Amino acid sequence: MWAYEKRLQYPINIRKKNLKMAKLLVTQYGGSNGELAAALRYLNQRYTMPDDKGRALLTDIGTEELAHVEMIGTMISQLMAGATIEEIKEAGLDSHYAEHKNALYPTDANGVPFTAAYFATTGDAIADLTEDIAAEQKARAVYENLINLTDDPDLLGPLLWLRQREIIHFNRFSELLDEYKRKGY
Amino acid sequence: MWAYEKRLQYPINIRKKNLKMAKLLVTQYGGSNGELAAALRYLNQRYTMPDDKGRALLTDIGTEELAHVEMIGTMISQLMAGATIEEIKEAGLDSHYAEHKNALYPTDANGVPFTAAYFATTGDAIADLTEDIAAEQKARAVYENLINLTDDPDLLGPLLWLRQREIIHFNRFSELLDEYKRKGY
Amino acid sequence: MWAYEKRLQYPINIRKKNLKMAKLLVTQYGGSNGELAAALRYLNQRYTMPDDKGRALLTDIGTEELAHVEMIGTMISQLMAGATIEEIKEAGLDSHYAEHKNALYPTDANGVPFTAAYFATTGDAIADLTEDIAAEQKARAVYENLINLTDDPDLLGPLLWLRQREIIHFNRFSELLDEYKRKGY
Amino acid sequence: MWAYEKRLQYPINIRKKNLKMAKLLVTQYGGSNGELAAALRYLNQRYTMPDDKGRALLTDIGTEELAHVEMIGTMISQLMAGATIEEIKEAGLDSHYAEHKNALYPTDANGVPFTAAYFATTGDAIADLTEDIAAEQKARAVYENLINLTDDPDLLGPLLWLRQREIIHFNRFSELLDEYKRKGY
Amino acid sequence: MWAYEKRLQYPINIRKKNLKMAKLLVTQYGGSNGELAAALRYLNQRYTMPDDKGRALLTDIGTEELAHVEMIGTMISQLMAGATIEEIKEAGLDSHYAEHKNALYPTDANGVPFTAAYFATTGDAIADLTEDIAAEQKARAVYENLINLTDDPDLLGPLLWLRQREIIHFNRFSELLDEYKRKGY
Amino acid sequence: MWAYEKRLQYPINIRKKNLKMAKLLVTQYGGSNGELAAALRYLNQRYTMPDDKGRALLTDIGTEELAHVEMIGTMISQLMAGATIEEIKEAGLDSHYAEHKNALYPTDANGVPFTAAYFATTGDAIADLTEDIAAEQKARAVYENLINLTDDPDLLGPLLWLRQREIIHFNRFSELLDEYKRKGY
Repeated sequence: MWAYEKRLQYPINIRKKNLKMAKLLVTQYGGSNGELAAALRYLNQRYTMPDDKGRALLTDIGTEELAHVEMIGTMISQLMAGATIEEIKEAGLDSHYAEHKNALYPTDANGVPFTAAYFATTGDAIADLTEDIAAEQKARAVYENLINLTDDPDLLGPLLWLRQREIIHFNRFSELLDEYKRKGY
Repeated sequence: MWAYEKRLQYPINIRKKNLKMAKLLVTQYGGSNGELAAALRYLNQRYTMPDDKGRALLTDIGTEELAHVEMIGTMISQLMAGATIEEIKEAGLDSHYAEHKNALYPTDANGVPFTAAYFATTGDAIADLTEDIAAEQKARAVYENLINLTDDPDLLGPLLWLRQREIIHFNRFSELLDEYKRKGY
Repeated sequence: MWAYEKRLQYPINIRKKNLKMAKLLVTQYGGSNGELAAALRYLNQRYTMPDDKGRALLTDIGTEELAHVEMIGTMISQLMAGATIEEIKEAGLDSHYAEHKNALYPTDANGVPFTAAYFATTGDAIADLTEDIAAEQKARAVYENLINLTDDPDLLGPLLWLRQREIIHFNRFSELLDEYKRKGY
Repeated sequence: MWAYEKRLQYPINIRKKNLKMAKLLVTQYGGSNGELAAALRYLNQRYTMPDDKGRALLTDIGTEELAHVEMIGTMISQLMAGATIEEIKEAGLDSHYAEHKNALYPTDANGVPFTAAYFATTGDAIADLTEDIAAEQKARAVYENLINLTDDPDLLGPLLWLRQREIIHFNRFSELLDEYKRKGY
Repeated sequence: MWAYEKRLQYPINIRKKNLKMAKLLVTQYGGSNGELAAALRYLNQRYTMPDDKGRALLTDIGTEELAHVEMIGTMISQLMAGATIEEIKEAGLDSHYAEHKNALYPTDANGVPFTAAYFATTGDAIADLTEDIAAEQKARAVYENLINLTDDPDLLGPLLWLRQREIIHFNRFSELLDEYKRKGY
Repeated sequence: MWAYEKRLQYPINIRKKNLKMAKLLVTQYGGSNGELAAALRYLNQRYTMPDDKGRALLTDIGTEELAHVEMIGTMISQLMAGATIEEIKEAGLDSHYAEHKNALYPTDANGVPFTAAYFATTGDAIADLTEDIAAEQKARAVYENLINLTDDPDLLGPLLWLRQREIIHFNRFSELLDEYKRKGY
């Protein structure tokens, strides 16, 4: 089970409203390569890892990804804070507003609702860890795209940090995969 | 953010393999009225609750629902533990096995992958809390169906406990809804 | 069965083309909290209501929601009438045009096709009626968002009237729910 | 708008419980070639038919398809009436029961929720009517499959009648298509 | 099996960047009436055609549709070539960029991922061929919409050619349907 | 473009009807880790590979995966050939029969229609190739599950061969990934 700690894993403090970036950032919230997909991928796969080390690593990173979901959610919330109807219309966020007003909802950047079809669990530790490594690479690529789309330092800070975390996860999954291959799983 | 505690919210200790119940129980894992839908519903809606009390309640119950996801996952895992290929075939779990072996994957009882279309966020606290009350009622109804489908006491214990938790959540959401209506939100 | 009466439940007479509002209004046509979801929700649930009164109420309101689907469709049609290609492009309706020209198609405001995953039927009258109450609240919230997005009186008239109907349905479902709770269903 | 008449278009009176057929029949309720898809297809396309005759025909047949949805729903209801938990398990309807108890819900025969992706509207009368002709042929083929799957005369009666209706609709759409082609639409 | 020939079925040589058209053209790539849906429809249906002629025709046209998928993909690629971030933002392609950078991905024009729900296979040659005829009509209508949306001759050339191919396929399917009806399939 | 060669990449000659295996095998036809997903993944990603070698490899393997789709389709066809209605019912293939008779249709083993959400394209060669490596590992794992589910040598032959091809593809993608990393893409 989880205990909630009332703080973000990394501080978010966005001072400049930016509805267009809010619309794009949501891909890391509920999109195919986003943090929710990552969290659920690992928290599902952990049940069939072959040893405690694997189960612990997947639980650990899966739990961290939940914190990333929360960070992205906070970023989107702050980017939308205080927007007027006119600003919402201009930014093309009116279709979101019509349905969700200023609420969060896990979709990709086109508004397609999150689906578990974005990730796989195979019960095969080698296949699952390779999928995890790919997931971290894809998330890194998406963070790089988002970084290219903004020059707001308040946004760049957490995006760069999150991108870095994906690389660290990539490395940890790679190490475990190597170990499991050596062990013949 | 969340800290993982290596224990279940309520102990799960299923001694009797039961693949057919594993196949059905998954509806509370990744189905339309299941625990994952509940967790994501509340953890998304909390951002637009109008006061700290509301945000705290939704964070609190959302976090507990994550623990319920874990409990259901553990139950499914234990129900499938040690199954032979023949048993898997007989129970009609072979379509799951072909794709996921013995791994968990969030679907409904027919194998349809989880989708965020199962829940709504409106940015309107009254509408959201009414949706939450409905969600708890629907989850209660599904737990009652599952309870009707088994007589294994190891399974009935946690199912009855989870059903009870839904009623408690229903009451807490109802109280907050009444308060918000009085306050004119 | 149903007999078609060649008139709308409430008159629609929109004189000003407005492609952007057409794009948004479609959420009440085929979106998660829209009229089609409402109609199908009630017309499905009625089969398991415990008495004639419940079956009649759900049939009655379900049938009215079909008329609301028709009203929304007519509004969208009139908002798009006579649009030129240039206007369609400017309003961002070109993706709709590419696929559907000026035809209607039930999606949400982002163009995601309608899915039955938006509503639930549980066979439990208390859970179903609570879901219905939530549906009416969510539809009310969406109508309020749409009302905020326009100042065209030709549009505001029917939107305000439809919003009012949702409140009336909310009250009728609430009364039946109270009665059913008293009766111990 | 529509007025509900409290009678079925064709009498349904199924005396023999048959859960397996209930599970299959649902494809004509919420499946890709089913009656709901047909009703929504025509009721959406009618807005862009080029003349009153076309609009009237699509409204007329769309309205009749709603009555067919109701007939199929009634058939499924009667086929499931009075089933015990044991019978539900044996028939493989337990995954439906877990989620919906004995309620109706529009899916295909595998339990996949209805989606509007099953039908198209193009705003081109020739293309739409050709799609409608195809829809009627596909529905006919599905009715023939269902007829092959049962020998219960209470079921065969309405299935044969519904199949016949699809042929009549096919003919009416074909005639209109010929007329529209002659007229150069 | 298939052998790849390193040439397009019809030459594509688009000299003018046009991100908005790229966004729209994708409907013929992964949308409901698009070339991928067509290819998969025919390549699936061919297995149940009643004679060699039918199997050959469906294989033949299905294979050609794969070449059309490739043509459309090439067109989209060329339309996006060399786009700057600013141009991508202005054209509303930023949501695509965030997730896919400049890569291709089969969706409709709103970004909804391709689904097999767009096409049907019934195992009934008459129904399948009627569906195929409808598919060709719908694809023709979509090509006409796209042609209306551009005046770039580099784009109009292949679009007109592709539209023409759909008409030829329509005729070939119509002839086979007539033959099969005569033969009483 | 592609030229069709009227032969399978590997001979399929299944002499024993086996409807249950047909139902499971379909996961490699239209399931999340199946051959269609693989083919479309590579044929989409090739457009953004950084050099001719990469484009050629992805075209090459993507084309081979189309041949694997055809092999799997042929296997399913042969496994279902000559089945009676009674056999179809017993094998639980009646829900397929109701909708598709004996036709092929790309779904997973639970009947969920194929969706492009199963694969990703990122426009980042390193991320894409890592995704491809994961895809091959997952397909290998699924083939192993299928191999565990049968002892028919006519089926085991092609399944073992296909599994072997996935390993070869895994190796080729790994080599290219190493090269691209060295080159600093």
